[in-house]
Amino acid sequence: MKASVIGATGYAGVELLRLLDGHPEVQLGVITSESSTGENISALYPHLANRIDMGLASMQNLEQIAAESDVIFIALPHGHAMKIGAQLKYSDVRIIDLGGDYRFSDHKVFEEWYKLRHADPDTKAVYGLTEFYRDEVKNARVVANPGCYTTCSILALAPLFKSGLIKTSGVIVDAKSGTTGAGRSLKLGSLYCSVNENFHAYGVASHRHTPEIEQIYSRLACEPVVIQFTPHLLPVDRGILATCYAELKENVSDESVAEAFEGFYGKEFFIRLLGKGACPEIKNVRASNYVDLGWEIDRRTGRIIVMSVLDNLVKGAAGQAVQNMNVMFGFDEACGLRQLPIYP
Amino acid sequence: MKASVIGATGYAGVELLRLLDGHPEVQLGVITSESSTGENISALYPHLANRIDMGLASMQNLEQIAAESDVIFIALPHGHAMKIGAQLKYSDVRIIDLGGDYRFSDHKVFEEWYKLRHADPDTKAVYGLTEFYRDEVKNARVVANPGCYTTCSILALAPLFKSGLIKTSGVIVDAKSGTTGAGRSLKLGSLYCSVNENFHAYGVASHRHTPEIEQIYSRLACEPVVIQFTPHLLPVDRGILATCYAELKENVSDESVAEAFEGFYGKEFFIRLLGKGACPEIKNVRASNYVDLGWEIDRRTGRIIVMSVLDNLVKGAAGQAVQNMNVMFGFDEACGLRQLPIYP
Amino acid sequence: MKASVIGATGYAGVELLRLLDGHPEVQLGVITSESSTGENISALYPHLANRIDMGLASMQNLEQIAAESDVIFIALPHGHAMKIGAQLKYSDVRIIDLGGDYRFSDHKVFEEWYKLRHADPDTKAVYGLTEFYRDEVKNARVVANPGCYTTCSILALAPLFKSGLIKTSGVIVDAKSGTTGAGRSLKLGSLYCSVNENFHAYGVASHRHTPEIEQIYSRLACEPVVIQFTPHLLPVDRGILATCYAELKENVSDESVAEAFEGFYGKEFFIRLLGKGACPEIKNVRASNYVDLGWEIDRRTGRIIVMSVLDNLVKGAAGQAVQNMNVMFGFDEACGLRQLPIYP
Amino acid sequence: MKASVIGATGYAGVELLRLLDGHPEVQLGVITSESSTGENISALYPHLANRIDMGLASMQNLEQIAAESDVIFIALPHGHAMKIGAQLKYSDVRIIDLGGDYRFSDHKVFEEWYKLRHADPDTKAVYGLTEFYRDEVKNARVVANPGCYTTCSILALAPLFKSGLIKTSGVIVDAKSGTTGAGRSLKLGSLYCSVNENFHAYGVASHRHTPEIEQIYSRLACEPVVIQFTPHLLPVDRGILATCYAELKENVSDESVAEAFEGFYGKEFFIRLLGKGACPEIKNVRASNYVDLGWEIDRRTGRIIVMSVLDNLVKGAAGQAVQNMNVMFGFDEACGLRQLPIYP
Repeated sequence: MKASVIGATGYAGVELLRLLDGHPEVQLGVITSESSTGENISALYPHLANRIDMGLASMQNLEQIAAESDVIFIALPHGHAMKIGAQLKYSDVRIIDLGGDYRFSDHKVFEEWYKLRHADPDTKAVYGLTEFYRDEVKNARVVANPGCYTTCSILALAPLFKSGLIKTSGVIVDAKSGTTGAGRSLKLGSLYCSVNENFHAYGVASHRHTPEIEQIYSRLACEPVVIQFTPHLLPVDRGILATCYAELKENVSDESVAEAFEGFYGKEFFIRLLGKGACPEIKNVRASNYVDLGWEIDRRTGRIIVMSVLDNLVKGAAGQAVQNMNVMFGFDEACGLRQLPIYP
Repeated sequence: MKASVIGATGYAGVELLRLLDGHPEVQLGVITSESSTGENISALYPHLANRIDMGLASMQNLEQIAAESDVIFIALPHGHAMKIGAQLKYSDVRIIDLGGDYRFSDHKVFEEWYKLRHADPDTKAVYGLTEFYRDEVKNARVVANPGCYTTCSILALAPLFKSGLIKTSGVIVDAKSGTTGAGRSLKLGSLYCSVNENFHAYGVASHRHTPEIEQIYSRLACEPVVIQFTPHLLPVDRGILATCYAELKENVSDESVAEAFEGFYGKEFFIRLLGKGACPEIKNVRASNYVDLGWEIDRRTGRIIVMSVLDNLVKGAAGQAVQNMNVMFGFDEACGLRQLPIYP
Repeated sequence: MKASVIGATGYAGVELLRLLDGHPEVQLGVITSESSTGENISALYPHLANRIDMGLASMQNLEQIAAESDVIFIALPHGHAMKIGAQLKYSDVRIIDLGGDYRFSDHKVFEEWYKLRHADPDTKAVYGLTEFYRDEVKNARVVANPGCYTTCSILALAPLFKSGLIKTSGVIVDAKSGTTGAGRSLKLGSLYCSVNENFHAYGVASHRHTPEIEQIYSRLACEPVVIQFTPHLLPVDRGILATCYAELKENVSDESVAEAFEGFYGKEFFIRLLGKGACPEIKNVRASNYVDLGWEIDRRTGRIIVMSVLDNLVKGAAGQAVQNMNVMFGFDEACGLRQLPIYP
Repeated sequence: MKASVIGATGYAGVELLRLLDGHPEVQLGVITSESSTGENISALYPHLANRIDMGLASMQNLEQIAAESDVIFIALPHGHAMKIGAQLKYSDVRIIDLGGDYRFSDHKVFEEWYKLRHADPDTKAVYGLTEFYRDEVKNARVVANPGCYTTCSILALAPLFKSGLIKTSGVIVDAKSGTTGAGRSLKLGSLYCSVNENFHAYGVASHRHTPEIEQIYSRLACEPVVIQFTPHLLPVDRGILATCYAELKENVSDESVAEAFEGFYGKEFFIRLLGKGACPEIKNVRASNYVDLGWEIDRRTGRIIVMSVLDNLVKGAAGQAVQNMNVMFGFDEACGLRQLPIYP
């Protein structure tokens, strides 16, 4: 089968190329970049030399690209995919969008948080958090691949919401992401000397992954959940840690928490339960599609603290996109994604 | 005047040497290390060469050291200072302890969290958070220099507790520290390849700075405050960021918050108020005694998020110790501490 | 086939586990550690959890391990492999040693530089620089896997020595390695705060990879070559860059240099020729078995500067070991080693 | 006295502000930036908040600035200072230029390597390598502050050239610099994700500091010296290490080398001789004006390897500029520059 990548020169795009190159069932179709049309991807990213020495096309001829592809990955800043989606409405190519455009069941939430009118409000995409929605993903024409912070945050608390072990108010997600999350655009704040030996929060009380997390938490809890979400910028290339605080309902035992996690994730290939007292580390999942989860209960405060880690470019972006592709096309879900983390 | 340093070879000890070297009123007295007695400090720390080429003494002859010194800084792991304090009970040397031994007004709290019997329970030390207790520090014989996380966390929320703008329940402090905070002892977790490109929490629901923070929050709020405190290890040398979450009381305006900070800290040399919407960065205070504060209010959740940064070795340890010394000996409080942060 | 790893808990050992796990033809046999016998490798290295949850054996029962294995990788500090080799002299298990013991055709060179009497001087191992000696490797019982600096340095200048384009005197190799090269033992110099934001040389004029490089340079040049070799410690996890200086013979053109490289490496899967003027970057080969080469000629000085990069744990250790195993057992040489570099 | 800074928003400019702020004899005059005219420097660099909250002027009114200042520091990219110098030819303000414009006694060397016509070829500036030329600096109207690599490289080999202990051919300087050396402009190669966990050479056989080093080496050796100079980019903020290789003349003893260094630098405050066998580390001089020197002799090859480290923003730029100012205005040479290095 043939997979094309729209927006192949960003960090998520180039990670897609790496994973697709190692996927036994996939052949790369067209790869595009508007700013580098005509250049060779390996001139921009020499780590691909001798392996992916393909020219970058423009996405102008979108229908043509769609016609030649079985699946199209869109790895563009938000606001672009919805135009592509609108244009390809009647194509039967399948689309996996790594941006925010199709993630909200109510497009007005998108419009409120992204300050943009939605260009394709009628398309109903499937939210591609694979572990939860693989049945829907299977037959989806358009999959909205979840955000990186979102995946990390949802996977941490989902079993507790679903099992009703925690209260729906009082949830705080304090999240920290590596710098690839900020993308490859030229900003003072992304310079080495700005990030190295530094650490700070950003987007406090306003980050766009907030409503995305709330949407799924609410769905799982069967009532509206409003959370506090604070992202921070880590001086590392890859990795997200979400430290999630929730208030336990009364008389919840350690065992029932352990059972909730086990019941939810016990058979999931990509989710590793480190258990009570364990503090997962981002380096232990680097360059892999794994999510590691650990938790602790503080009886003094009545809270549970769940910590989850993933690689923002893999399970937080390209890896989960490939996982979704696997589901959509009937491959083994872990196909092309079995590489162990790179440690150290 | 003469200042001696007991435990000069740890990171806090060696930072004390740096600051005392630049202090116009101080002469170094004795510097000690039990593991490196007889060696020259500049052989262990070549950055001190040609400037502090002193031999390391043992602290065996403690009374002798006390007799020759006006002030003794103790920069040892907890559990040692209380023995030194007991031994020097009748000396008139003044003591500034950088460890945890004397930080609790109730020594049973120490015993519970540090799992150690207190060896000098009767000595009443002054808690050396200079901005709040400088009057008491002035005349103290023994000053308990606050912990690094503690200083950062207390300074963030103190004005809000004191002004009664926040509720006393529901406070979460999610803190992140550079690796000097883990000290210089040889542990797998402190190796470069363990810390670099990594990030994780530790001591969840059990870190010893928790009761220390609660003690002061409670004092300020005039009622018992129980908090959630979670420390994390950052891949940087220096710096702490505390992201502090508190629930605002009803109808608290932005202005009243701004006024509370301004009223509390407006005249403080070492505290810089970045104001609403600002996200302080640890690199902006590196190697300085400054604390930068920023905050945001989330009206959706009713919470205020206060972010504070400091250098854990300076305002979080050696710098505040020197600040306290300045107060104790009648020097200008900023004497020897005016260096600007090192950026980048 | 079955592969066992003696010394599985060092960085090279654990990298072997990662690569062997992804190798379609290999099953892990026994993995050993004397210091952690009985523990589970994934307790020490949680990045392996759910995948390599094997107990660590002792290597006491060496003959037993050999009997159950087709190949044994030895990833121990120098001085151990030669004892194992002596003990397994009459076993038909094949051995790939990642240490220095068997790298010298003259064991006296080993004894001089390693200050150790050789315990198995009669065993003639094949030097496993695969690109040059694959015919010998194919049938070897014992393969001496080259050192990390060595591989990087030899591959850089080999074509020029072989083609006679450079003089045999005046060669300087200024090399820089990531910190995994220093191993996982607890040393002050390996602490995060010692390595981070730091850089320095070590082993100047005395590093043990010097005679190993000289041995192969001499073999290629057909006359004795003495070099200057200086290693440095980089604040990164992985990667070596060797900046190699050599004096060009008279009238050597750019074209003849390009042809030498092309002729030597044009068909090598793992060697990428970036060509004249290119400066290879260690990040472009991270976690892969690739070696990237670039070069420049300075007509003012008459020198050529060849720069080579590799990942010290992959092509510099475990990757080349697997490459050798592939050759020894008749697999495709790149089998299990095709993963693209991890970037960023 | 009043010091103005032309180009205050680059890394060298802002480091000048830090040092001048701590200098007891200096008051800041005008600080300029063409791209941020009208803004407050502490809005761009919040680490300066509450201390240097000055507005940035344009340098349009240059004569006015000169009239109000005793000394002007120019911290602009090359090509600008020579125009300023031409414009201020008849002013009696003293100028310290941190760029390359005035560093060459023969302006044609500048024109050849910088590919620019010199706009002020008649002005004879003094080359401000303070340790060597302090007598000339004292009375200079225009001081050309040396480059960062240059200072590091020259100080390493100067005593050996001057004493005639090394040959004038065969010198190789393999140098490695922190990323502040690349400046604050927005380039892909300066992004965090481009530099972190990476390392590579650049400007091979063509870097502009080459002729500057050669100029002084030649002056010291009293004959033309041509060197090989290769810079590399280190993933650290600050610091340069130059590994310098030179061929010893016959029968040069260790003692005579030690004496040459001692004789040359024994009384220099900012130069610390670590001696034979020592490998200086960049972290040991961080944020200070120190230069640490170590060396080793390889009797197998007949070479001496001298290693020197400095902080590229301090002794390699702003610190040496202040040191020169001290000499020019009759202050103690170390005034405002005595801070110990920041370690760790």
